Amino acid sequence: MTSQTLTVPQRIDAAIAELAPHFAERLSRNPSVCEQHAHGEGYHARHFPHAVIFAQSTQEVSQILRVCNAWRAPVVPFGAGTSLEGQVNAIEGGISIDLSRMDKVLEVNAGDMDCRVQAGVTRQALNAYLRDEGLFFPVDPGGEATIGGMCATRASGTGAVRYGTIRENVLGLTVVLADGRVMQVGRRVRKSAMGYDLTHLMIGSEGTLGIITEVQVRLHGVPETLAAAVCQFDTLADCVNTAVQVMQMGVPIGRMELLDDVQMDACIRFSKLEGFRPVPTMFFEFAGGPEAVREQVALVEDIVAENHGSAFTWSTREQERAELWKARHAVYWACLAYRPGYTGISTDAIVPISALTDMILGAKKDIEDSGITAPIVGHIGDGNFHTVMLVPEGEDWLAKAHALDRRIIARALSLGGSASGEHGVGLAKMEFMPDEHDAVALDVMRAIKHALDPNGILNPGKLLPAVAAHPKACQPA
Amino acid sequence: MTSQTLTVPQRIDAAIAELAPHFAERLSRNPSVCEQHAHGEGYHARHFPHAVIFAQSTQEVSQILRVCNAWRAPVVPFGAGTSLEGQVNAIEGGISIDLSRMDKVLEVNAGDMDCRVQAGVTRQALNAYLRDEGLFFPVDPGGEATIGGMCATRASGTGAVRYGTIRENVLGLTVVLADGRVMQVGRRVRKSAMGYDLTHLMIGSEGTLGIITEVQVRLHGVPETLAAAVCQFDTLADCVNTAVQVMQMGVPIGRMELLDDVQMDACIRFSKLEGFRPVPTMFFEFAGGPEAVREQVALVEDIVAENHGSAFTWSTREQERAELWKARHAVYWACLAYRPGYTGISTDAIVPISALTDMILGAKKDIEDSGITAPIVGHIGDGNFHTVMLVPEGEDWLAKAHALDRRIIARALSLGGSASGEHGVGLAKMEFMPDEHDAVALDVMRAIKHALDPNGILNPGKLLPAVAAHPKACQPA
Repeated sequence: MTSQTLTVPQRIDAAIAELAPHFAERLSRNPSVCEQHAHGEGYHARHFPHAVIFAQSTQEVSQILRVCNAWRAPVVPFGAGTSLEGQVNAIEGGISIDLSRMDKVLEVNAGDMDCRVQAGVTRQALNAYLRDEGLFFPVDPGGEATIGGMCATRASGTGAVRYGTIRENVLGLTVVLADGRVMQVGRRVRKSAMGYDLTHLMIGSEGTLGIITEVQVRLHGVPETLAAAVCQFDTLADCVNTAVQVMQMGVPIGRMELLDDVQMDACIRFSKLEGFRPVPTMFFEFAGGPEAVREQVALVEDIVAENHGSAFTWSTREQERAELWKARHAVYWACLAYRPGYTGISTDAIVPISALTDMILGAKKDIEDSGITAPIVGHIGDGNFHTVMLVPEGEDWLAKAHALDRRIIARALSLGGSASGEHGVGLAKMEFMPDEHDAVALDVMRAIKHALDPNGILNPGKLLPAVAAHPKACQPA
Repeated sequence: MTSQTLTVPQRIDAAIAELAPHFAERLSRNPSVCEQHAHGEGYHARHFPHAVIFAQSTQEVSQILRVCNAWRAPVVPFGAGTSLEGQVNAIEGGISIDLSRMDKVLEVNAGDMDCRVQAGVTRQALNAYLRDEGLFFPVDPGGEATIGGMCATRASGTGAVRYGTIRENVLGLTVVLADGRVMQVGRRVRKSAMGYDLTHLMIGSEGTLGIITEVQVRLHGVPETLAAAVCQFDTLADCVNTAVQVMQMGVPIGRMELLDDVQMDACIRFSKLEGFRPVPTMFFEFAGGPEAVREQVALVEDIVAENHGSAFTWSTREQERAELWKARHAVYWACLAYRPGYTGISTDAIVPISALTDMILGAKKDIEDSGITAPIVGHIGDGNFHTVMLVPEGEDWLAKAHALDRRIIARALSLGGSASGEHGVGLAKMEFMPDEHDAVALDVMRAIKHALDPNGILNPGKLLPAVAAHPKACQPA
């Protein structure tokens, strides 16, 4: 009996039967365990895997893939389940490989400011581990994400404006290929010109080219001086223009986050922020040596004044700073609490900084026209912003939300932007791949996918549309 | 008559015959033109192309590749011919595609600090073009390289310690594939999570996966304050330790270059540097706001003092600064002038910063043991350094130089480093690919090469060894 003669469910069952003895109670078909692995934090319908395996080592992931590849059974890597675009949903069933128990920090090289972690280590756990080293890992998407998952989705967050995204903060990876072979990519050096950049090919591939089991990450020294400030504006335009000018002046700002009037209203209620009005607001963090910080603050205060912003409200004590950024990171929950029982659907568009004012004012109008409550929050220094579209039960509202998302993305693409700054493609953004990439680039992506995963077992049905929805002619520039 | 029934030279001639009418005098079989395109600036034997075509547009490159792919005729992209590892040598003959006439700056977006250039624009030409914008392109490998060539070889240089390599400074590319199809990869945004990172796959692929014809590059604001200083040390260890501590303190240094005693001797003679001794020396550049620079200088002066360095010799006037960095960029020519008639063979190892002192002191001893004159110069903040091995005529000396290079690379790899920080693989570093990458990673690179260039016409015989010289078992970590 070969895998050729069997149906997909039969092949999956055969793979599970072959793996079960090796994993005992770490292989679960329990419905509630499968339900936990049927979704991320997005709004999408659940897609259950047939089984979940809690892997503890690269060798175990290799063994699972060897067996699943032989049976042509789908596998979906699962970290913390915090992705928003359906990346972890098992849309063809199969085996969800849960990596959360691979949670060891393997090595810290303080002198080189790098360390090696297993894929299941969360950024919070790593930073707690590093607390006494005077070092930290700067990529901060907000959620309790695993570092492996952050690599898979090319995650980013509030620190990216200063320290870059996960892409700039990974030196190397251990990757298990579809057939179970294991490869090391990248080295501990800051740069190398020795061959194809497989590290960056894997980052953002969402488990469709291989499964990341270890990550060599860059670390950064905890800045000597950290100061956080909040500044409020009467108009959204003044607020966005401030961010644009801060970037164009080349200020090495630590963090810079925009919250619109509706988002501030939600945050003031949810996080009990005292002394703030529900108006367009900017959260700043300044980091560096004391002199450098003083210099940055003076520059930004001038820019704020020119744009009619309020005086800064400072949070210099660590406690206050933590409160402020906790409130920022709680925006998604603040939004859900703002319209109890509603579903929150996050957009993720990004544009070049010079287009940001047009983009955000345009998005604000699109939102008003749609009749949907949709607070805006943005990693504004990167040109990336989110609107959490809050919709009640019902297909028609979901359709309205998707229509609004499409309008926002169309506007971003027309301004030279991208449909996703940091949440990735998953299921939800696949329809936009042909709008963002020409048909030739999509063909190249498919050729690479086929070369690395000929049986199509790795997170099938994600990231890459099987055929371009509306292919473009290839355009010699 | 199909390409199947012909010999390689017949196929090349057939492709040239088909292309000749379209390119007229821009297709040359002139021996001196072919000789100019038979080598870079490295020491390797020349390998002549059968013809050189001076392309003027992406469409023309597409047309050449369509024809050469149909005839299975080799093509080699050629920019300024400044590569050092044999990347442009036409080792199987064929057509050298000279992109130097594609030298237009297509678009500058000052507000977004990016611009779009044709592949043949040199970094000097771009910076001259940008002079009045208050912006600059920071990747500076020294030579008069083209930006397309810098992308193809993943170039770097003295500015990388502050601004990153070409990898961190490219947003997108126009690439012509082996079959002549053209794709756009990347967008103008600072980050995106929409699909596979084809931009970084192409960067460093040395023309083996596609030919880069346009580049969207990041620019940076010219710093408000720039100051250059030179500092001398009695011992190499003190000099290297200073660099290591500057990096470990997280000082955002603008440039930091090490020259050992022999290199300083060569530079003092060649560039008429006044008032310096032929001892281990560091060139620093500080960049930023005046307060930030003052802070950096104070920090670095303390570190220098702790390591028994001399007082700083300052070059604050632009003229002096230009002289100093001109001398730094002339080191290769200074080395050649140091031993007239000798051949210069540059090494390019890189290690994690904490291993730098062991690495450089070890390399210095390896050099002394070898009896070869080999000045050391380094982009020391990156952990990357070069030794220019100066050897007289004769196979035995060439063999001695290669033995020294192998010793230096073996030491670098044993310290977690890489065989090439910035010069690339080309012909010269291919033998080290199996030492640096495991057999599985090499197989993946070969699978990608085969998927994108099934006929193997793109810069054949470069970068990727056909079979691993001494394959390693794949090592589940």
